[in-house]
Amino acid sequence: MKKRVKDPAGIPLGFKFAAVNAGIKHTKRDLALIYSVVPAQAAGVFTKNKVQAAPVKICRSNLKNGTAQAIIANSGNANCCNGAAGIRDAEKVCRKLAGSLDVKAQDILPASTGVIGRPLPVEKILNALDELKAGLDFVNARSAAEAIMTTDTFPKLASARIKIGKKTITVSGMVKGAGMIAPDMATMLCFITTDANISRSLLKQALKSAAAGSFNMISVDAQMSTNDSVLVLANGLAGNPLIKTADANFRKFAAALETVCRTLAMMMVEDAEGGSKVIRVEVRGAATDREAKNVARKIADSPLVKTMVAGANPNWGRIPACVGAGLISSSPEKMRIFLQGKCVYQNEQPQKVKRELLIRLMKKDRVDIAVELKGGRSAYTMWTSDLTAAYVKINTEYN
Amino acid sequence: MKKRVKDPAGIPLGFKFAAVNAGIKHTKRDLALIYSVVPAQAAGVFTKNKVQAAPVKICRSNLKNGTAQAIIANSGNANCCNGAAGIRDAEKVCRKLAGSLDVKAQDILPASTGVIGRPLPVEKILNALDELKAGLDFVNARSAAEAIMTTDTFPKLASARIKIGKKTITVSGMVKGAGMIAPDMATMLCFITTDANISRSLLKQALKSAAAGSFNMISVDAQMSTNDSVLVLANGLAGNPLIKTADANFRKFAAALETVCRTLAMMMVEDAEGGSKVIRVEVRGAATDREAKNVARKIADSPLVKTMVAGANPNWGRIPACVGAGLISSSPEKMRIFLQGKCVYQNEQPQKVKRELLIRLMKKDRVDIAVELKGGRSAYTMWTSDLTAAYVKINTEYN
Repeated sequence: MKKRVKDPAGIPLGFKFAAVNAGIKHTKRDLALIYSVVPAQAAGVFTKNKVQAAPVKICRSNLKNGTAQAIIANSGNANCCNGAAGIRDAEKVCRKLAGSLDVKAQDILPASTGVIGRPLPVEKILNALDELKAGLDFVNARSAAEAIMTTDTFPKLASARIKIGKKTITVSGMVKGAGMIAPDMATMLCFITTDANISRSLLKQALKSAAAGSFNMISVDAQMSTNDSVLVLANGLAGNPLIKTADANFRKFAAALETVCRTLAMMMVEDAEGGSKVIRVEVRGAATDREAKNVARKIADSPLVKTMVAGANPNWGRIPACVGAGLISSSPEKMRIFLQGKCVYQNEQPQKVKRELLIRLMKKDRVDIAVELKGGRSAYTMWTSDLTAAYVKINTEYN
Repeated sequence: MKKRVKDPAGIPLGFKFAAVNAGIKHTKRDLALIYSVVPAQAAGVFTKNKVQAAPVKICRSNLKNGTAQAIIANSGNANCCNGAAGIRDAEKVCRKLAGSLDVKAQDILPASTGVIGRPLPVEKILNALDELKAGLDFVNARSAAEAIMTTDTFPKLASARIKIGKKTITVSGMVKGAGMIAPDMATMLCFITTDANISRSLLKQALKSAAAGSFNMISVDAQMSTNDSVLVLANGLAGNPLIKTADANFRKFAAALETVCRTLAMMMVEDAEGGSKVIRVEVRGAATDREAKNVARKIADSPLVKTMVAGANPNWGRIPACVGAGLISSSPEKMRIFLQGKCVYQNEQPQKVKRELLIRLMKKDRVDIAVELKGGRSAYTMWTSDLTAAYVKINTEYN
């Protein structure tokens, strides 16, 4: 399931990328730059964690004017829990880069990922900026996606193309993330570029909706990061008539953006730390959206369900235990539980499904768990990974 | 840390115990009986999971009259998700045992633990009841504690003695539990016997308070079981004047009960599936009790914190990330974080603590994490275990 390589179908007009090793990590690329040749409309969604990294705070502030022209991102250090020094360091980087690119410092969006609570090696980053700028090229998106990786095993890129009138619009994104992945927030580092000509408010609306329909539906280990940022830059170079109302063109763009986000989100689940399988959890017939989400999350975050899937272990009784922990108003008596499409429980009775068949079905790369309640019409779907000893090993050692 | 053996200091007057292999498991003891020679005041607290096993439902019903005389418990099968058949099977066992012991069927409290969603092998249990009854003896508490074990590696017993007037009162308990352990519920199978002479309502009050101060403060894997039951029988044979008001004698008894529960709760954490260390999480200075608990739980349930402890990995930055996910109204800027008593973070700055020192301190069997907020005066303490590959192995294979 790992080592997936998916190069983007295309890069939007007017965007360039670069990546170098700044020396934060020993030899791997650890510093990425994304640059739009003209100022772009910009929006972002960020972690709901109350402890937020310095770059997250600066992004929020720099996005206030609604435009941006570059994203500078490092891996190997989260620049989080570094107080005023962390802010100062990130601002230094933004200022120097702004001077070098001849753009406003406020139009630079910084991002960091890596270990929390260690000072940012700011001199190394400052010293690498010239080399980074020199490497800017539209062919370098993949290198930039590599430079933001931490425990990821492959770079994650995706893109989509739509036509609005006679103009072709490209939406392209990159993401990093394999652990410390939890839903209901902006999630991970994800940078999306598009040449769409779209108003700032609609760009923000489309991004929020796309994040809800993608990143917020996945979970690796229910751990909310301090650095999650999804940023989008729309530079308008596709030349389409400005999208300024929530019309059919807007919906087309929003759908393309969500497609890119979903593809990237699925890549994160596939690349989950130590993960060997993808698990799809679907809850139907819940009384409320909150209940549907709550039940889905109890299942998706359960180490007992995750280890069961890892071992192709047909011990499905762990699923109703999670449902019972997540139910809010629906009654458990009427639920039906499906594992790989086979009904294993209904009418308050285990169903006769051959154990050998279940084991065989659970050996597949993807395991589907579905819960059907009779409490109402709300539904929710989540994607997660299994839990293996490799997750434990990675996180026992990572520092 | 494992293989702890602690025999009870004593068994209350008038209680007998027995255990046999009924054939639910291959060779190990799997059926336990606890019997009071006279009817006892009885109380219970149970899982808050909405999916509840048949024996939990029967216990709730049988406790309505406030008396009980025997507890029958099996391991190897949870008798959960078996619908009406599960209830019928458990009732059959209670009825036959009641006839054999010459007590009312309503005075039998059933309990089960093991795999969920598999029919109870009721014939095996019925056939074993005679042998079980024949084995009743006050020296068999340890065998009974063994018979209720699932993934536990040692039987867990504890007791306390107090004097009320000239009478000696003994409180004795046994518990099973190593996985599927989450706080805020009645938790696991725990059977407490005492010869105290105490009113039913005060017995219940003392039990609820003891559970809150013990079992509800621990967590292994944040998984709420469907079968958790804590039962207490008080047969009055100590001959103390009836405890019927919340006076000094009541407080003495309640303290003894809580001591027994705490000792048993700590044993569960020590025996946590795959666990190699005990983690104590203390949150002080929170704005509300809810916030203190929420922050403590985010830390105690975090696989990143648990793997960090398992590896004696000084990557403490994972702790503020959990705090930030758990804060409700306090500000993260003023927090201080302590690892093994060393302040690693304050004034929004990582503190200079030698990495080698931290690693050495974290190699101890017990790791203390403390978070000091400046939001108010609420505090909460939780106990949990680390996360190792052995937990994954146990739960990948258990079925």
